Amino acid sequence: MNDTLVTVVGNVATNVEYRETPTGGVARFRFAVTARRYDRERSAWTDGPTSFYTVSAWRSLGANLAASVSVGEPLVVLGRLRVREEGTWEGQRRTFVDIDAVAAGHDLTRGTAAFRRPARRLPQAADGEKDTAQEAGAAAVAAEGQRERRAEEERQAEPELV
Amino acid sequence: MNDTLVTVVGNVATNVEYRETPTGGVARFRFAVTARRYDRERSAWTDGPTSFYTVSAWRSLGANLAASVSVGEPLVVLGRLRVREEGTWEGQRRTFVDIDAVAAGHDLTRGTAAFRRPARRLPQAADGEKDTAQEAGAAAVAAEGQRERRAEEERQAEPELV
Amino acid sequence: MNDTLVTVVGNVATNVEYRETPTGGVARFRFAVTARRYDRERSAWTDGPTSFYTVSAWRSLGANLAASVSVGEPLVVLGRLRVREEGTWEGQRRTFVDIDAVAAGHDLTRGTAAFRRPARRLPQAADGEKDTAQEAGAAAVAAEGQRERRAEEERQAEPELV
Amino acid sequence: MNDTLVTVVGNVATNVEYRETPTGGVARFRFAVTARRYDRERSAWTDGPTSFYTVSAWRSLGANLAASVSVGEPLVVLGRLRVREEGTWEGQRRTFVDIDAVAAGHDLTRGTAAFRRPARRLPQAADGEKDTAQEAGAAAVAAEGQRERRAEEERQAEPELV
Repeated sequence: MNDTLVTVVGNVATNVEYRETPTGGVARFRFAVTARRYDRERSAWTDGPTSFYTVSAWRSLGANLAASVSVGEPLVVLGRLRVREEGTWEGQRRTFVDIDAVAAGHDLTRGTAAFRRPARRLPQAADGEKDTAQEAGAAAVAAEGQRERRAEEERQAEPELV
Repeated sequence: MNDTLVTVVGNVATNVEYRETPTGGVARFRFAVTARRYDRERSAWTDGPTSFYTVSAWRSLGANLAASVSVGEPLVVLGRLRVREEGTWEGQRRTFVDIDAVAAGHDLTRGTAAFRRPARRLPQAADGEKDTAQEAGAAAVAAEGQRERRAEEERQAEPELV
Repeated sequence: MNDTLVTVVGNVATNVEYRETPTGGVARFRFAVTARRYDRERSAWTDGPTSFYTVSAWRSLGANLAASVSVGEPLVVLGRLRVREEGTWEGQRRTFVDIDAVAAGHDLTRGTAAFRRPARRLPQAADGEKDTAQEAGAAAVAAEGQRERRAEEERQAEPELV
Repeated sequence: MNDTLVTVVGNVATNVEYRETPTGGVARFRFAVTARRYDRERSAWTDGPTSFYTVSAWRSLGANLAASVSVGEPLVVLGRLRVREEGTWEGQRRTFVDIDAVAAGHDLTRGTAAFRRPARRLPQAADGEKDTAQEAGAAAVAAEGQRERRAEEERQAEPELV
């Protein structure tokens, strides 16, 4: 592997562009991450600098991002990080910092969200891969729910939530 | 620091419990993560085992999670990982695996979401900390938008999206 | 994928056990991570609780860990996180928190280290996978070195390192 | 917080420059990360593109990196990611991708390493912060060692290491 995975928390800085390509649909947008620092001398939080990334998302994640996300909205994005350097016509080198998103969602630190599953699965092979995972997840979730209910009485005695 | 940050992608396995405490509101739920493996011999993806975590989220993130998330929904969660061992009344040691969430959202790989900012900021000091970051982020986003528009013509010539 | 990758920084808490298995050698040890918190009221850093993990490392990483690491030494470990629950003979459920290491090294925050490449590559297919990467990396490194040297004069003028 | 933490696994691409500054010593070097992909059609691993980062490390980590690391050696680095854009004299914007290292060590996937703690602690306040953590870690490690020994007989019965 050796892929560099990174999670970024910030705001969508441009419109989400969506395009169909021979290998599937892809959404692309710029993403702004502003660091926060605790200033010990002033005993207060202050803003650090803002970093910008170009996020790409393919297939169902791309389509759903394009259908769900507007400029300025807060997101949490998990993806593969890549730094590209390319020559320009003028002979200069330019640096691009890309994140190929693996998962992403609206950051609920900043607001609420209503989620909706697709009415039917898209007929795409790549998405189909995930069907079994989803079912397995659902089964695991159900089993966990049962165990949780059984463990209920036990928990009643717990004095502390965390 | 030395906090262990982790990003988990999976499904909410229990109802989200929400409680007010002297130090603020907290939401808690169990979270199921099912690994996926590519089986080279069968040339297909298969399910790996499922790991369970207990996620806690405080203040605005906790309140918004409680208002937005139902059992079975897919989330991406960034948080601090902690493994706790505690003795029970019967003298056994039990192990708890907790994630103190820093950011979280519905995983848009699995569906769409409509996001809504709070009508007005909650009068909580801890949330207030983020106001400036949000404004700074907005300013940065606006500046980026301008640069993007200026760079538009340049980009027209780009043959490739990614 | 959906593997949960995590990076832990802490200390080796037990001897490193190494065993040969039909699918290759594996090293195993317990690992202790102690969180650090900045206490704003006291304006000082304090220790948080310690989390324990069981780290496994296969093939060359396992063999090199076994040859290099002693109890108490500080490490940084990147790996796949998994929470396992298993029944015991007595009918209880026990929870195990495992990290399947992908990369690991002595944490140079705490001391110095002398690194040594293997005199010759081990004749293992799985390690062989990495040979090309290493060569490609070396080529990239060489190219970068050249660019760096060319950029040297440019940098002389830089007033600030960071 | 909102810092973007990232773990990169790759090779040191330039000499490690070390400088004393009014706020402490700092080491700096370029770092090359080459992605690896599994090619399903060819059933083999292939090299992806190489990303370059500029790594900075302060105080004891910086000094120890400078004393321990040479060009071409493999490292695993955990740090804060930042993307900076700066104007040049010629009016162009250049992009820099920096990692401010929090922990780092030689990647033992590629070789062995001999670790050595400093003979005495450096008289730096910032390093002193970690002394207590180290002691606490040592105590925790000792306690864990005891529990491990007690659990030994129990484990003898375990049929499987992993």
